[in-house]
Amino acid sequence: MSARFSKILSALPASTPFVGPETLERMRGSPYEVRLGANESAFGLSPKAMAVLRSEADRASWYCDPEHFDLRELLAAEFSIARENIVVGEGIDGLLGLTVRAYCDPGDAVVTSLGAYPTFNYHVAGFGARLLTTPYRPDCHNDTAALVDLARRENAKLLYLANPDNPTGTFLGRSAVEEILEDLPQHCLLLLDEAYYEFAPDQDLLPVIAEDPRLIRFRTFSKAHGMAGLRIGYAIASRDTIAAFDKIRLHFGVGRLSQLAAAASLGDRAFVATVIADVAKGRDDYEALARDLNIPSIPSFTNFVALDVGSEDRSQQMVHKLHEMGVFVRRPGVPILGRFVRLTVGKTPERVALKERFADAFRSLI
Amino acid sequence: MSARFSKILSALPASTPFVGPETLERMRGSPYEVRLGANESAFGLSPKAMAVLRSEADRASWYCDPEHFDLRELLAAEFSIARENIVVGEGIDGLLGLTVRAYCDPGDAVVTSLGAYPTFNYHVAGFGARLLTTPYRPDCHNDTAALVDLARRENAKLLYLANPDNPTGTFLGRSAVEEILEDLPQHCLLLLDEAYYEFAPDQDLLPVIAEDPRLIRFRTFSKAHGMAGLRIGYAIASRDTIAAFDKIRLHFGVGRLSQLAAAASLGDRAFVATVIADVAKGRDDYEALARDLNIPSIPSFTNFVALDVGSEDRSQQMVHKLHEMGVFVRRPGVPILGRFVRLTVGKTPERVALKERFADAFRSLI
Repeated sequence: MSARFSKILSALPASTPFVGPETLERMRGSPYEVRLGANESAFGLSPKAMAVLRSEADRASWYCDPEHFDLRELLAAEFSIARENIVVGEGIDGLLGLTVRAYCDPGDAVVTSLGAYPTFNYHVAGFGARLLTTPYRPDCHNDTAALVDLARRENAKLLYLANPDNPTGTFLGRSAVEEILEDLPQHCLLLLDEAYYEFAPDQDLLPVIAEDPRLIRFRTFSKAHGMAGLRIGYAIASRDTIAAFDKIRLHFGVGRLSQLAAAASLGDRAFVATVIADVAKGRDDYEALARDLNIPSIPSFTNFVALDVGSEDRSQQMVHKLHEMGVFVRRPGVPILGRFVRLTVGKTPERVALKERFADAFRSLI
Repeated sequence: MSARFSKILSALPASTPFVGPETLERMRGSPYEVRLGANESAFGLSPKAMAVLRSEADRASWYCDPEHFDLRELLAAEFSIARENIVVGEGIDGLLGLTVRAYCDPGDAVVTSLGAYPTFNYHVAGFGARLLTTPYRPDCHNDTAALVDLARRENAKLLYLANPDNPTGTFLGRSAVEEILEDLPQHCLLLLDEAYYEFAPDQDLLPVIAEDPRLIRFRTFSKAHGMAGLRIGYAIASRDTIAAFDKIRLHFGVGRLSQLAAAASLGDRAFVATVIADVAKGRDDYEALARDLNIPSIPSFTNFVALDVGSEDRSQQMVHKLHEMGVFVRRPGVPILGRFVRLTVGKTPERVALKERFADAFRSLI
C-alpha cells in the first residue's frame, strides 16, 4: 500500500559521498585531537565576517534574500562580469547537484577522473546519469586528453574537473584548460570546480569568460574564506545557464547569515591574503616532512598536500594508525592515487602534532 | 555548440516561488518599516540558540555533521521515535524538493489545494510532475474530500496539505487527517506540512506514527523557533522513506551553526512557550482589528491572520497601498482566498504600526 519511489530512486543503491569525522568520532568513542582530513580552513573566518555573524545573529529569524542580490553585485564587480552570470547556492555541493539535474537525462554520459570528487559522482548517480571515468596520469595530474577523448567517444553531457585539483593538489595552467575547451565535443559542458582557486597562481588561472556557454565554474567560501559550515558557494556561467538554474534552484536554500558573512569576507582582501600566505607555509612544512621521511609529495596549489607513503596497503594502514592516534586525515581509495595520504594544512601546533604522529606511524610501518 | 538542457528543464517556463521583500525594497528604493509578510518570527531566537551562534561562530570553518546525528537523537527522544525516522534538510523547502524527486517520475500526478504553498508547486514543476489542484472550500478550509477524490481519479503519487494551513491559518483536527489517510488511494503519499505545528492545539494534532509508509510530516525551525534565516527543517517518515532520502539528499546542505542552534532551541521549551503565547496575543490583536473594521477574519492556528477585505480587487489595492506606506504583507492570488490579506504577527510596536496603516488604507478604499 505504500507509495512507489521514482524509477531513478528505485534503481539506486545506497551510497554516501563522505563519512564525516563526527561519525568516525562516534565510532572511536572520543573526538579527534587533530582534525585535518576535510580540507577545512584552520585559519577561521575573516574578522569582518565574524563581526557580521555576531551583529546579525538576532536577525537569523528573517529569510535571506532569495536573489542574493548584494552578494552577486559584489562578485560581479570583483570579476568584471554581470550579476546575471552568477548563481549562489548551498556550497559547490549544492550547485553541482543543480548542474547535473539541469543538463542530464537518465542514462546521459558524464566524464570525470577516477578518484575525483565523490559528491559530484553521487549527484550523477542520483539523477540517473552514467558516470564514466579515466584514471589520473601517473604524475597525478588529471589526464585531460583521455578525459576529452572519453567525452567524445561517449557523447558526454558533462566533463568535470577540479582545478586546482582535489585530492592531488595539482594545477592545470591556463593553456591546458583552453585546450580542453577547444577539443571538447559538441554539446559537452566543462565543469571547472575551482574550490581552491584562491590558492592557485594568479597568472595561470583561466580568466573569467562568463559568456562561454560550454563552461561553468564553481567557487566556494568554504576554503580560503573559512566558511565551510555556512554552506555558501557560487557558480559563474553564461546568462542562459544561470537563467535555467533559476527555474529549478532552491531559492531559499542559503542562510541569511551565510550570505552576509560571505559578502563581508569578500571585502576583506587582507584576511584572505594572510590565509593564502599561512597555507603556503603549512604546505612547506608538509613537504619538509616528506623530505625528512624520504618520500615523495605532490606539489600542491591548495590547502593540503598529498604524501606518497609507497603503497595502497601502507596508505590504508597509515590512515588507520593516525585515526587511532587521534588524527583525522583522508586518503583517495583508487588506483594511482591510492598510495597517498592527504594532509590538510593546519595551524602551527596542529601541524606539529600531525607531523610527529605521521612520522611515528610511518616509521612503525616500514 | 552549447550543451543541451535536460528534457524537463528544456520544457520548463521561468518561475519564482516567491518575490522576496528585499526585491520589493529594491523596487521601492527604501527598506520597509514593517516587515510582516513572510510569516517570519518577530520574537527572534531562543537565548540558548543565540549563545550557541556566538560561541560557535569561529567554528563555522568546519563542515556540519552530515548525519545530523545529535539533532536527530534529540528529535527522536522528543517524539519517541527512532533516529532512523528523521531526516534533516535545508528547511521544509529543501525537503519538499527531495520528496518530489524521490517519488515522482515525469508526468506523475500530484494533488494540492489551489493557493497552497508555491514552493511545493515549484518543485513539482521542476521535476516534471503534473500539478493538479482543487479550490479551497468556501469556509477557507482545505477541501479534503475533493483532494482525496482528485488523487484517486488521477492516480496521484502525492497529496500535499499544510496543517495548520498557510495562507489561511485553518486547522484540521486529528480525525480529519485520519480520514484522509483512510481514503487515500493506493500508492499515494500524504505530505503533511506542519511548519506551524507548534501553534496548533496539542490535543488535536495527529500523533507521530513514524512507521506509516504513506505519510511524511515536515517540520521547521523557521517559525516558532525563529530561525528562518538558518535554513533548517526536518521530516518524519518511515525508515524506508528516510533511507531513500539518504541516497539522494545533499549530505552537506545544512550549516553547522544551524544544526547546533536548532538543537539548543529544541531544549528551550520555556522560550518556545513564550513565543506561542505572544503569537496568540498578536492574533487577538489582528482579530480585534478585523472587528473594528467590521470585516471577517479566519480563526488562525499559526503566526498570522488572514483578514477578509471584501474583494480580490480591494485586497490587491490594500497590499499595494500598504507597500507604499512602508508595510510588507502578502495576499493569496487565487479564487476564494483572493479577498484576503495575510498579516504576520509582529511585536507590539509593529502590530500597532500595521493596524493603524491597515485601518487607514482600508478606510480610504471603501
